[in-house]
Amino acid sequence: MTDEYTPPKIWTNDVSAGNKWANINSPESGSRFDKELPSGKHPFQLYSLGTPNGQKVTIMFEELLAADVKEAEYDAFLINIGESDQFSSGFVGVNPNSKIPALIDNSAAEPLNVFESASILVHLAEKFSKFLPESGSARTQTFNWLFWAQGSAPFLGGGFGHFYSYADEKQEYPINRFAMEAKRQLDVLDKQLAKNTYVSGEEFTIADMAIWPWYGCLVLGRLYDAAEFLQVETYEHVVRWAKLIDQREGVQRGRIVNRSWGEEWEQVPERHSAKDIDDVLKLKP
Amino acid sequence: MTDEYTPPKIWTNDVSAGNKWANINSPESGSRFDKELPSGKHPFQLYSLGTPNGQKVTIMFEELLAADVKEAEYDAFLINIGESDQFSSGFVGVNPNSKIPALIDNSAAEPLNVFESASILVHLAEKFSKFLPESGSARTQTFNWLFWAQGSAPFLGGGFGHFYSYADEKQEYPINRFAMEAKRQLDVLDKQLAKNTYVSGEEFTIADMAIWPWYGCLVLGRLYDAAEFLQVETYEHVVRWAKLIDQREGVQRGRIVNRSWGEEWEQVPERHSAKDIDDVLKLKP
Repeated sequence: MTDEYTPPKIWTNDVSAGNKWANINSPESGSRFDKELPSGKHPFQLYSLGTPNGQKVTIMFEELLAADVKEAEYDAFLINIGESDQFSSGFVGVNPNSKIPALIDNSAAEPLNVFESASILVHLAEKFSKFLPESGSARTQTFNWLFWAQGSAPFLGGGFGHFYSYADEKQEYPINRFAMEAKRQLDVLDKQLAKNTYVSGEEFTIADMAIWPWYGCLVLGRLYDAAEFLQVETYEHVVRWAKLIDQREGVQRGRIVNRSWGEEWEQVPERHSAKDIDDVLKLKP
Repeated sequence: MTDEYTPPKIWTNDVSAGNKWANINSPESGSRFDKELPSGKHPFQLYSLGTPNGQKVTIMFEELLAADVKEAEYDAFLINIGESDQFSSGFVGVNPNSKIPALIDNSAAEPLNVFESASILVHLAEKFSKFLPESGSARTQTFNWLFWAQGSAPFLGGGFGHFYSYADEKQEYPINRFAMEAKRQLDVLDKQLAKNTYVSGEEFTIADMAIWPWYGCLVLGRLYDAAEFLQVETYEHVVRWAKLIDQREGVQRGRIVNRSWGEEWEQVPERHSAKDIDDVLKLKP
């Protein structure tokens, strides 16, 4: 209780209390400057970054292409959130929430904007009848776990990741709160994966694609450098599943798209054809 | 920087650092005691509580019934999360994540468990072809905003609400962080509702049902006692929409189901027939 604090009657944006993201975060939404988005020749134009939320969608595209859905060709452009690309008039026109990933689908009569990673997964799954069962119990279970992922990951990313990795000052209370919740979520998944090959049953679905970049990569030690802190190896069924997903060709290709960090063979900042990924994967030792 | 803290190498569950929810929160999932769930005579058995996530689903049921979908009859049982009802073997069998709302659909060949509020909305919308456009741009926009709600509300509830209202110690940094995000989210909605009657366009959909109990009730001054702090009246289009939704018969009925607090005419702890709600609404002054 060293930090007792009484909030003011009316919140104000006190920048002096800010952190290293203060130039990005704002209580106002909308575009901050005029700039159109680039555009390629394929039916789908993706504006993204290879963070977990971005990976969900590039994995989906590469899984569709690996399943021989030739209409799923896409151009992927890099949105550098550190450079405020998400606040351009072009990007805000696609996603008013200024978050990656954002998609324009030019395959219909009129260009359609799709935002929120899971909405893009559902849109593509329904368009190509892939990775989302069309009816019955399997469809409902896929939605159960897809929504579980979308409601849970903010506690892992915006909660645990923020306070454990990104916040300038480390504080015990929020780190404790969100570490406990991250472990509880891993335990929920672990029990589910003890009984099922994939998250929503015996079929690989968009629920796996939504959950793997967060919880799969967490237990593989690729997220927040928190493997020891959270004792991730104790969630053995999650580890089993994470490795299974990690071996998929579509996942290996999709997870490196829109990345401009990591190893040289993990960086495909833009993707306009299969060759862009092939060339980079060749560098893998 | 009065609270500098170095996390240990391995996180442990130090209960002494806990808060008033310490008896409920745990890093482990799963059932804590054996107890079956009660069951009524209708096709749908709902286990819930009239918090914003619970209200989404009871509003959906009442909207379906108001639209004359007679097959949407339901029994709603109260899950008292303060009494740990969500950790019974019965409840965990329906939702392994131990969160309300949870639903059993007995209308199909085999009983089906549906969890996550938005998954329940999608399940019912698809089953009855109501409140979710069946194809095209309108369907995609509904999913865009439905997923926006599910990914955003954790920052309002688990973030802002927790640190502003529930946490034992008030801390400036997390309150600032989440107040800014709550205001940014309200601003995103405000710009969208400046151009559209409802959140996803000109049609009332499950996106409105998912967003109203959180952001609608926030601007109506019913959530967290934070109307002044967040200056909610400045989001005039959200206020216009919140009042429009608040006038709907299905909303007025659904929002009071599974509530055991507030005014006398707002409390319908269990619902087994329309009369349970009628009798309570009669008490409204």
